[in-house]
Parts: sequence; structure tokens; C-alpha cells
Amino acid sequence: MEPGSGSRGAAAGAVSVSAVLPAGGSGERLGGATPKQFCAVQGRPLVSYAVRAMERIGWICDIIVVVSPENIETMKTIIEKYGHKRVTVVEGGITRHRSIFNGLKVFAENKFCNHLLQKPEVVIIHDAVRPFVEEDIVSKVVMAAKEHGAAGAIRPLVSTVVASAADGCLDHSLERARYRASEMPQAFLFDIIYEAYQQCTDYDLDYGTECLHLALKYCKTNAKLVEGTADLWKVTYKRDLYAAESIIKDNLSQQVCVITETSVKETIEQVGFLLPEALKSQIKVEAISISLSKNDSHLQNIISGHCYNFVCVNDKKHAIQETQQLVDMLEKSNIPLLYPVVLISVHLDISEDNSFSIGIEELTTIIKFARETKKKNILVYGLLIQYK
Amino acid sequence: MEPGSGSRGAAAGAVSVSAVLPAGGSGERLGGATPKQFCAVQGRPLVSYAVRAMERIGWICDIIVVVSPENIETMKTIIEKYGHKRVTVVEGGITRHRSIFNGLKVFAENKFCNHLLQKPEVVIIHDAVRPFVEEDIVSKVVMAAKEHGAAGAIRPLVSTVVASAADGCLDHSLERARYRASEMPQAFLFDIIYEAYQQCTDYDLDYGTECLHLALKYCKTNAKLVEGTADLWKVTYKRDLYAAESIIKDNLSQQVCVITETSVKETIEQVGFLLPEALKSQIKVEAISISLSKNDSHLQNIISGHCYNFVCVNDKKHAIQETQQLVDMLEKSNIPLLYPVVLISVHLDISEDNSFSIGIEELTTIIKFARETKKKNILVYGLLIQYK
Repeated sequence: MEPGSGSRGAAAGAVSVSAVLPAGGSGERLGGATPKQFCAVQGRPLVSYAVRAMERIGWICDIIVVVSPENIETMKTIIEKYGHKRVTVVEGGITRHRSIFNGLKVFAENKFCNHLLQKPEVVIIHDAVRPFVEEDIVSKVVMAAKEHGAAGAIRPLVSTVVASAADGCLDHSLERARYRASEMPQAFLFDIIYEAYQQCTDYDLDYGTECLHLALKYCKTNAKLVEGTADLWKVTYKRDLYAAESIIKDNLSQQVCVITETSVKETIEQVGFLLPEALKSQIKVEAISISLSKNDSHLQNIISGHCYNFVCVNDKKHAIQETQQLVDMLEKSNIPLLYPVVLISVHLDISEDNSFSIGIEELTTIIKFARETKKKNILVYGLLIQYK
Repeated sequence: MEPGSGSRGAAAGAVSVSAVLPAGGSGERLGGATPKQFCAVQGRPLVSYAVRAMERIGWICDIIVVVSPENIETMKTIIEKYGHKRVTVVEGGITRHRSIFNGLKVFAENKFCNHLLQKPEVVIIHDAVRPFVEEDIVSKVVMAAKEHGAAGAIRPLVSTVVASAADGCLDHSLERARYRASEMPQAFLFDIIYEAYQQCTDYDLDYGTECLHLALKYCKTNAKLVEGTADLWKVTYKRDLYAAESIIKDNLSQQVCVITETSVKETIEQVGFLLPEALKSQIKVEAISISLSKNDSHLQNIISGHCYNFVCVNDKKHAIQETQQLVDMLEKSNIPLLYPVVLISVHLDISEDNSFSIGIEELTTIIKFARETKKKNILVYGLLIQYK
């Protein structure tokens, strides 16, 4: 499915939407020198996952990443390295609220950006340290914000919340069922949240953290609360980085890209269509029809999206050349090959004059080739299917 | 340090203390068929880590694990397999509160256990799904409970907590700094918590979750809140299992057991003392002085405690025999050798007549032996130090 082509996406797409990602935190709770948004998970900074999650949603126009002054260059390097598009880097303030406010100003003032960006109807506020947000929840929050003026994802509380008295003893505990944890993404009609930020006090900007609270306090807007999924959680502690890493590794092995060479016979095209259909109940499948000989940016995106499993379907005599091209592309992508790339080259031979010996010759070539690529942690398998 | 020999431990040790671990949950939030407390982390069920954490604290008398009727046999098998001591398995109720109440009854009624256990002055309530609790926080909570009647570990809130109105919109958000997440362990004077459970309503037993709340409501006891460490978190979602696994793996490589054979010369004994001192700023070191030829339960405990790195210091002529004994013990322990066991055999030769050739001979033997054990994922290294 193309980003934004789903029914929800279409609904949210009718509104002009942009996103602000505050990424200015120091990450002191993580206990390391590197702010958590820049910590590498499978060789890629956490913030890059959050940006990618937004970027994949086609109907989000601009993505504003707000970072502290000393990290602006780091952020620009990340954007370049991972080929992020539609991203503007903005200098943050000393608190989360001040950073978000700076991010919003990009749409209203000329100060933080050399050109004024198109003011969106709805603005999403997400976190740089929540790498796994899906289009579905973003879309729900955006639609709710359009209707109610403000909306935010919530989750059930994991622990009971208690209030302590001045002497450090329990004052009272909250009834867990009546309360929720406020998570991200949140979304607002731009004019509402911008006005709230303009009106709020320095105390709010310095000590507050909750955007929904500002919308309520200064614009009398009661945000709609939207139940989110478990993957919305925020990377806060070192154990969360471990968890993020494991989730990403899990996804690695559960994702496959089926590549059908363009300009193949109709039968092959059909296989290229049937295979993803058959696989998709088991794993995440991306099916593309491209020419491997051209440097295709779609395939580049898939590779940088951590998909390390490929099935190439073709009907050419010398299928090995195309496999070689894909291997070259993988090598050039400079991806950290901690996990082996699995590449299955399927050669569908539907010609009339196929003979056993030709097939064997081809398989021998691929075995030889596979032996070489294995040293690079790329596992190539050849599959020859002959039928009349 | 021996469990309970520290200053805090000694303080807590002056009180009679037992622990109740409710482990009856269904773990539905984890999304699997196995209740989370029985999910394997590095091949060992989560509940076994929590039991071990309690068991390591020498001044805790009895550990009551409360499980649902269908899991009683599973729990008994776990206790046997991992050699847990001082544990009594009790049948749980249909809710968390009912399970804890059943656990407490073991000290007051004859119904749940064939013999009445000694009623403790203070009872700890912990969770089967919090594998990493340290003696320090347990001790703090126990001492606070002795003084205040009740006490519980707390942590800062990770997300803002919001209250929703009937229409699903934001009613108000709580000021994050004034509230805390109530975590485990908690501790109570036994008579207080037992009375609270006896007095509380069926509604409390069926819908409540917070023991501190019961002590406040029924015994007017305001629990002392004790700031806990980040590792107190509860395994709730699948990502938490991932995190737990990574933390355990991390610990594996950062823990070493230095074994000095008993009946060695004084010089060797000194090395056995100096080495842990030198290492302890870098990694977790356990230093023991035992005879490897006897089946030592202390060493068994260390192995089942997931320590997979060993340094054996000795001055015997045939050091290889002792290394062999340790390898045998590791094999018999049936530990899941996902990670290689590293075993460094240090032979300190302080005899007058040491010659180069004898050393070489010994090292050749160890190289041969190491080649064999490597197949079992046990890496043996030999180090021969000769001096006069």
C-alpha cells in the first residue's frame, strides 16, 4: 500500500497537515552522554526512525525537527545520510514547550527559517523518541483534532499513581481506571495551539510539559482523547533502547520485498502479484516492479527502511546479472550488516525450449556467486522454475 | 559480599521478614498465551528471576509464591529445576488482591499450607514480573514499613496523567511533579496489612490493585513512599520482555566469579583476594574459595545465577583436572549455553624448580582440552605464571 492511499489517510489528506518533532531533550534519564534521540538503534539514530515514521505518511506536508543549537549540524547530517525529505531543522529553546513553540513559529514568523512555510490547518506534535508510530493512530488523532480543536493519544496506566504528602508519605492513590497516560502523537488546529503558546506564561513554558493542558487553559479547548496502541511508548530509559532494538530486529526478519523486473512477460507479472498476496498474512510484504539496472530511489528507500529480505522474480536468461546489481546496491547503501541479507533469485523459465542442462548451468553460476556474497553477509539463493 | 551482610541488610535482618509474590496474572497485555511470569527470558521463566532476587537476600525467611490453580505444578517444577529454597507455593484467587490475601493467610491460617509458617513482623509484597530488584531498595522499604507500618517504592511518572470526561475528552491533566508511579516492592507490618485484607470489601478485593490504599483506608496507615531505582519496572508488554532479556545478557558479560582452590599456599590466596579487588570497579565480581572436587552448592548457585565467566586460580601441578571438574559441573547444570562460558585457568607456579619445558607441556594440555570444550561453547584459556 502506498503511504496515505488508505481510506483514513484519504480522510486526513483532505486537511493540510504538518508535524513538529521536539528533539531538544538532554536524555538525562538514559544515563549516557548522548541525548537519547541521537542514540543509535541498529546503527541508526532514534530520531531518524521517528522522522521516517512521519515521512512515510504521504499527506504530512512539512516535518519540523526542533533540536538544541549544538545538535543542528548532527541533525542535518542525519537527514542527509538517511535521505529524509520534507524536513526542516529548527533551533530549540531550553525547555520542551519552548522548543515546540519555536517549531510552530516556522509557520507564522520569518525568524527561524529563511522562508515561511505554508501554515497547516492541523499540526501534529510527536516525539523524536517514539520510533514506532503508525499511520492509523496519526490519522485518528488528526481527524479528532480537526473536529475538536485538539486531540491526543492515550494509554492505560501501567502503575497506580499516588500523591505524596509533604512528609513523603502517601496522601492518596488515584483510582487507576479513571486516569490515562497522555502519550504522543497529539494534534491541534494550528490557530488554537499557536494562540495557546502566545498567551501562556513563562512559568508554563519553563515548567509545563503537556500541550493538551495549554489548549485547555488558554483556548478552552477540551482535547479529544484517542486510545493508542502499545507501540506508542516513549524511549526513556536504557531498557527502552534495548526494547526498541529488539522490536526493530524482529521487524527485520518479518519483512520482505518482492521485486519484479519491469518488462517481463505477463505470466511473471502475475507471479509478482500472487506471491505478495500469499505472503502478506504471514509477514510484512512490499511489492515493487522496477528495473534493477537503473538506480531506483524507491528500492533505496526500502533498503534504508531496514528491509533485508528480497525475492527477485524474473524471466531473463541471465538472471544473475540482476542479482549482482541488487548486491551492488546493498553494498553501496552502506547498511550495517549485523543481520544477513537474504536474497532469493527466482527465475521463471516459460520458454518452449528449456532443457535441464541449461538450468543446471545457471544454478551452478548462482552457487558460485552465492559463495562470494556470503562473505559479505549476503545470502543468495537461486530458484529455477521451468514449465511449459 | 554475602547476602544480608551489609549494614542495611543487618538493620533489616533484626526484623523477622517474609515475602509474598503474587504470580497469578494472566498477562493478557503481553499478547501471548503464556502468562508473562512464566515467559522464558534467556531460557528461564521470569518468575524464577524474581524468586531468586528475594532468595539472595539472606534475611528474608519465607518466600510465598501465589499462582493460579492450573499453574501450581508448573511453579513447583520451576522451583525444583532452579533449586529455589525457602519457597512455598500457594493457590491464588481470581484477582491480584485475593491472591495476595491467600499468600498472607499462610502465616495466619492452616487452610493453604499443611503447616503454619512463622508469622513475620514485616511482610514484603513484590511482583513475579519485576526480575531486577536489589537488596538495597528492599531493605529501605522494610525499614520504612517497620517505622511507619507501611511503605512502598515509587518512581517518577514517565508520561503526564490525564483524567477524561464522560464524552472521552480531556477533563484535566495532573501536575506531573506532584504525583508518582507506585511500584514494588512494598512492605507492611504483617498485622496491619492482614487486618486491612480482613476488613476490606469484596469490591476492594475484586477491583482494587493497590495494597498501600488498603492500609490507608482500613488501618489509617499512611505508607512511607521510598524513591526506587529505574530497574524496578514491571514487565507488562512484549517490549519489556525484550528489555529484560537484553539487561540479563548485559549482566552476563559483566559478571565474573574468581575461584581460589582451598588449601593453596598463602601467596595464591592473596592473588585470589587482589584480583577481585582490582576488577570490581569494572565488573561485578564474586570471589569464592572452594574445593572444586567437592560438589559445592555455592558454586551451583553462582552458575544458576547466570554467571558465565570464571577465573580459577591455583598452584597445583595438574590444574587441568580442576578446570575439567568445573567444565563437568557447568555441563551438568544444564544451563542454556546461548552465550559462551569463559573460563580462565590461572596457574601460579611459585615452586623453586620450575622449568620452561614443564610450563609448555601444561599449556599444550590445556590447548588440547580447550579445543574439545569449545564445541560445547565453553571457552577455556590457560595462563601460567612462574616466579621465584
